[in-house]
Amino acid sequence: MNEHPQTTTITYRVPYADTDQMGFVYYANYLVYFERLRNELLRRSGTPYKEWEARGLLLPVIEAYCRYRAPAHYDDILTISGFISLGKGTRIRIDYEARRDDTLLAEGYTVHACLQRSGRPTRVPEELRPDNLDK
Amino acid sequence: MNEHPQTTTITYRVPYADTDQMGFVYYANYLVYFERLRNELLRRSGTPYKEWEARGLLLPVIEAYCRYRAPAHYDDILTISGFISLGKGTRIRIDYEARRDDTLLAEGYTVHACLQRSGRPTRVPEELRPDNLDK
Amino acid sequence: MNEHPQTTTITYRVPYADTDQMGFVYYANYLVYFERLRNELLRRSGTPYKEWEARGLLLPVIEAYCRYRAPAHYDDILTISGFISLGKGTRIRIDYEARRDDTLLAEGYTVHACLQRSGRPTRVPEELRPDNLDK
Amino acid sequence: MNEHPQTTTITYRVPYADTDQMGFVYYANYLVYFERLRNELLRRSGTPYKEWEARGLLLPVIEAYCRYRAPAHYDDILTISGFISLGKGTRIRIDYEARRDDTLLAEGYTVHACLQRSGRPTRVPEELRPDNLDK
Repeated sequence: MNEHPQTTTITYRVPYADTDQMGFVYYANYLVYFERLRNELLRRSGTPYKEWEARGLLLPVIEAYCRYRAPAHYDDILTISGFISLGKGTRIRIDYEARRDDTLLAEGYTVHACLQRSGRPTRVPEELRPDNLDK
Repeated sequence: MNEHPQTTTITYRVPYADTDQMGFVYYANYLVYFERLRNELLRRSGTPYKEWEARGLLLPVIEAYCRYRAPAHYDDILTISGFISLGKGTRIRIDYEARRDDTLLAEGYTVHACLQRSGRPTRVPEELRPDNLDK
Repeated sequence: MNEHPQTTTITYRVPYADTDQMGFVYYANYLVYFERLRNELLRRSGTPYKEWEARGLLLPVIEAYCRYRAPAHYDDILTISGFISLGKGTRIRIDYEARRDDTLLAEGYTVHACLQRSGRPTRVPEELRPDNLDK
Repeated sequence: MNEHPQTTTITYRVPYADTDQMGFVYYANYLVYFERLRNELLRRSGTPYKEWEARGLLLPVIEAYCRYRAPAHYDDILTISGFISLGKGTRIRIDYEARRDDTLLAEGYTVHACLQRSGRPTRVPEELRPDNLDK
């Protein structure tokens, strides 16, 4: 994934809160990690999600997928990366990976609808189409 | 606590999600359990919290306390109970307990401000004063 | 889904904790709802997951997918249902749905590896193969 | 709090996951923020909590308190700080604050038992007594 030109990367330290009694990060938490990445990805694309909402553009998740490859543990430093892999019509897809050093822990994607505040679908803004992210 | 005349009780089955790597329920989850109890307590007092919000009364938490006495585990059935212990001026206090059978696991309280939607404090409604809960 | 002969169903009241600032249930929580269903499904199949773990069989999630169709709100009563849709080799797949009355809110699946405590893959026990769930 | 000589400070960006339908950070999340601070505090005191556990010292929470002073919002950058305020006998107390710039959002404390892996109480290690944290 690191070769993709528009990849955003964050790091995240796993708290006890995220673990379960197997001693691993509980599976639903990866969707929160993906959201953390998404927030930074939008910010670095030029407009934080908070700003999109203020302008009346909502991006609710309509699909989420995750493949778990190896467990993460308490106090691990995770590297989460992702990029907009698709943005056309009224939909955006973002692809993600979570790693601990060189170990791939999880990979997945989310699909988002572009909605006006009223709930009506609207076209993906130029700024969020993959081909416009190369500066 | 079971002797208090206005006690509300719910049961809750602990999912894996709530546990941590010690094999116990993570401490922050008890505040969610207290909220679950609070929702039922208000409903049984006559007006669900959702309805209070629709009428323009908000009850944000301004204080929370919990004393952890024994650990809860995955798949335990918890009994959570509580009652309004104080309701005067612009504040309400609710007291809680979580048990597994006869074992006391945790006890605590939350204090709530009564606010209008504008954020202005407002008097505790009659209905939520402890002495008006006896029917 | 209700027509599937081996469907397990639970109900769940949405707490404030599960909502986000859009006023909807945050997307990661559906994976926790799926886990709640899974716990009951295994219990009703004859052996609670806790018991499988005690016997040395672990079922970690290796894949999770969810399609979000309509938002759920605070205080909604959700009906979550699911069944084992596949169980062969060393893998199990469970399919899920979440509804509010007749409205489909979300549907998805999880795939689980069957592992011995040592981490070695092991065959799906008879009891968890879809064709053995009809009694 | 910044004047206390042994204060540890971290920053944390609030994800959507942490908000509720009031548009504020849900109250239980502050206990997770306190845990994040605690992890860094122990690490900077010389021994990460993970290492204490490996050596056979557990520090389960036996009491938690939080006073909520002002709401935090999505995408806020919080500054969480804290220090060991008490460490004698078999107990440790840690005090915390969460701020957004100069605004105090929440303050609280946790009390922890020092336990051996067996569950037996044990004396607070020298390293975790407040008077030994000055280097």
